[in-house]
Amino acid sequence: MATLFTKIIRGEIPSYKVAENENCYAFLDIYPLRMGHTLVVPKKEVDKLFDLDVDSYRALMMFSKEVANAIKKAFPCNRVGMAVLGLEVPHAHVHLVPLDTMDDLNFARPKLKPTKEQFEEAVGKIRAALN
Amino acid sequence: MATLFTKIIRGEIPSYKVAENENCYAFLDIYPLRMGHTLVVPKKEVDKLFDLDVDSYRALMMFSKEVANAIKKAFPCNRVGMAVLGLEVPHAHVHLVPLDTMDDLNFARPKLKPTKEQFEEAVGKIRAALN
Repeated sequence: MATLFTKIIRGEIPSYKVAENENCYAFLDIYPLRMGHTLVVPKKEVDKLFDLDVDSYRALMMFSKEVANAIKKAFPCNRVGMAVLGLEVPHAHVHLVPLDTMDDLNFARPKLKPTKEQFEEAVGKIRAALN
Repeated sequence: MATLFTKIIRGEIPSYKVAENENCYAFLDIYPLRMGHTLVVPKKEVDKLFDLDVDSYRALMMFSKEVANAIKKAFPCNRVGMAVLGLEVPHAHVHLVPLDTMDDLNFARPKLKPTKEQFEEAVGKIRAALN
């Protein structure tokens, strides 16, 4: 059965799409730690990041760098942090989160609850920064 | 002035070295979240991960994959998680941590305090898994 993220990539489940290329798809996390929190996933459905074949892993990491630099422009912060845990959805995904303190990447803390308008504004800002 | 990690790479400060190659150096975090918690750093002294030039970034990520797969063999776990925060030492570094729960990658939780013998055993296991 297709994972949640594969359904998002296929457009069967809506998402706030940031960008995509041949191998990867980036979209806003709907449970963000900070506004701009983005997930980058390989189109190949593999559970664990380090089980990805070398080419898919390299593609994911290089695309994550591009997206991270756009997030940094769109959401001024000390830097963009990266995390890969992956225990909740069995499809490898890179979290990219604007950071000013260590706590900005603490997944135990309560998530934000942005409105649709706030998500749309955020995705627009990151897309503009990518162009 | 050289960063803490540059001094470690140069051998001016001792470390439990896991592996190194032309571009990167991997060693045990002395404040581990779990036994096997390893840091992978570029030899190039750059503060923020996403400011690394493309070649150095790619090299760091590819080396991190090799080291992560060795950690997984040495320390059985659901998977190896990855995190890059970098607010404490101004030299980009990738955390690789054995994960079984989300909390294993929660930097707010108390760190382990292994003995020298436990560190030596851990580094030996990861090195063996790399070979």
